Amino acid sequence: MGGDLKIKAGESTSIKASSREEAGKLVNVKLTIAYEGTEFSGYQRQGKGERTVQGELEKAIQRLTGTAPKLIAAGRTDAGVHAKGQVVNFTTGSPIPISRWPTALNSCLPPDLIVWQAEEVPLSFHARFGAKTKTYQYIVSRRQWPDPFLRRFSYHYPRPLRVEPIRAASAFLVGEHDFKGFSAAGSSVATTVRRLDRVEVTEEGEEICFTLTGNGFLYKMVRNIVGTLLLIGEGKADPGLVRTILTKGDRQAAGPTAPPHGLTLMAVEY
Amino acid sequence: MGGDLKIKAGESTSIKASSREEAGKLVNVKLTIAYEGTEFSGYQRQGKGERTVQGELEKAIQRLTGTAPKLIAAGRTDAGVHAKGQVVNFTTGSPIPISRWPTALNSCLPPDLIVWQAEEVPLSFHARFGAKTKTYQYIVSRRQWPDPFLRRFSYHYPRPLRVEPIRAASAFLVGEHDFKGFSAAGSSVATTVRRLDRVEVTEEGEEICFTLTGNGFLYKMVRNIVGTLLLIGEGKADPGLVRTILTKGDRQAAGPTAPPHGLTLMAVEY
Repeated sequence: MGGDLKIKAGESTSIKASSREEAGKLVNVKLTIAYEGTEFSGYQRQGKGERTVQGELEKAIQRLTGTAPKLIAAGRTDAGVHAKGQVVNFTTGSPIPISRWPTALNSCLPPDLIVWQAEEVPLSFHARFGAKTKTYQYIVSRRQWPDPFLRRFSYHYPRPLRVEPIRAASAFLVGEHDFKGFSAAGSSVATTVRRLDRVEVTEEGEEICFTLTGNGFLYKMVRNIVGTLLLIGEGKADPGLVRTILTKGDRQAAGPTAPPHGLTLMAVEY
Repeated sequence: MGGDLKIKAGESTSIKASSREEAGKLVNVKLTIAYEGTEFSGYQRQGKGERTVQGELEKAIQRLTGTAPKLIAAGRTDAGVHAKGQVVNFTTGSPIPISRWPTALNSCLPPDLIVWQAEEVPLSFHARFGAKTKTYQYIVSRRQWPDPFLRRFSYHYPRPLRVEPIRAASAFLVGEHDFKGFSAAGSSVATTVRRLDRVEVTEEGEEICFTLTGNGFLYKMVRNIVGTLLLIGEGKADPGLVRTILTKGDRQAAGPTAPPHGLTLMAVEY
């Protein structure tokens, strides 16, 4: 892989062959990245013409190394979902020193996608399977009119919402449960049991911020939880509804899926 | 004016003729508005094809009333500059009740422009001449890499900046001074004397926030002040430079004009 490496004149990063490259040594690179999801069709590479985070990152890595990487991400966020601390990894024979990766990649990446950090990790490191917990944040804005500055990052929900019943309902979510009733219909996973370590609901002015930390999240689980908590906050359902959904696994009882643009993947712990 | 009012079928706001309209009574409407400046060529209406805040607002008002209004704004913000509390006013013979104006206008306005509030004010009220003070905020981000979430609202300045000399320099700015040296070359105003009541510099994580309140601001004055304070924060100039510029009125001595997208008009007091 390293032997085919060609550096074209005019590229923004100068890369020199090193003894490591000559020996063909593979390095596992862990990147911590952030992106504004607004103009991405989600994280995962899709058909042609779809702009994805994976696609943009792979293009940048290929431009630097000459080789298409196999990227693994901690969480494959949906279209419109943001990330402040997504983690991805890939192995490469490139001689780029680990500390140079952010500079090298950021010089090729669009402004809505940035690499905060690069670390060399053992070859056994896998961004998805190795993740111990992930933290998501969902922001709901109760303002009467949508704030132009928050419109891309929050769900505008201009109805009277009480936080106390939302907090009471959230308490039922903490712990290990079968979250089947909060997963999207049709998703196939081995088990729908997950553990939530934290469901925090904070008010900042007219915004409500939901912070969830857990060992895994089913497809659309956070957005389905938030949609249900909003029903409860409006008084259209009792906090006990959450317990019922967890017990019966009934997706029909849950609230509507909250839209993607209020959601941000904040951090992944290993 | 009121007599020509025609409501087209299918418009989102129903307006009924009232005795006020029949009497042709003029109402002076004060609007408090917010906009993200990114995709506007500034506040002031310009040539065709330029998207401006004034142009979008006038279109919306004309759609509702059938008449092109004469809009007056507290501050004609430049291209890229944002506003969270801009104030505009216009007189109209429209029978739309004052409390309905935000709903009516917001139903016609694009998502980067919003009306927070409408108030009926005396006919003598003039959004520009009546303004007692205005408050601007400028955000500088010192992060190594530009944060995708702040990129539209902050000036990315990844250099070591010390806040103490910036604060020392800011102290010279408070009070009544001739700000000629901080105004854009070629701007023609009767006097370049203005009074700054507050120049606050706060740190929030890696961001530095400059808050300036004053009785008036010359063209590009905030951006020239910030550009100069950044030089001082980097240690490229002493805090005393600000005093020198104020005393000598020498634009050449000031730092470069900071870019528009870090600037937001926060509030106007009457």
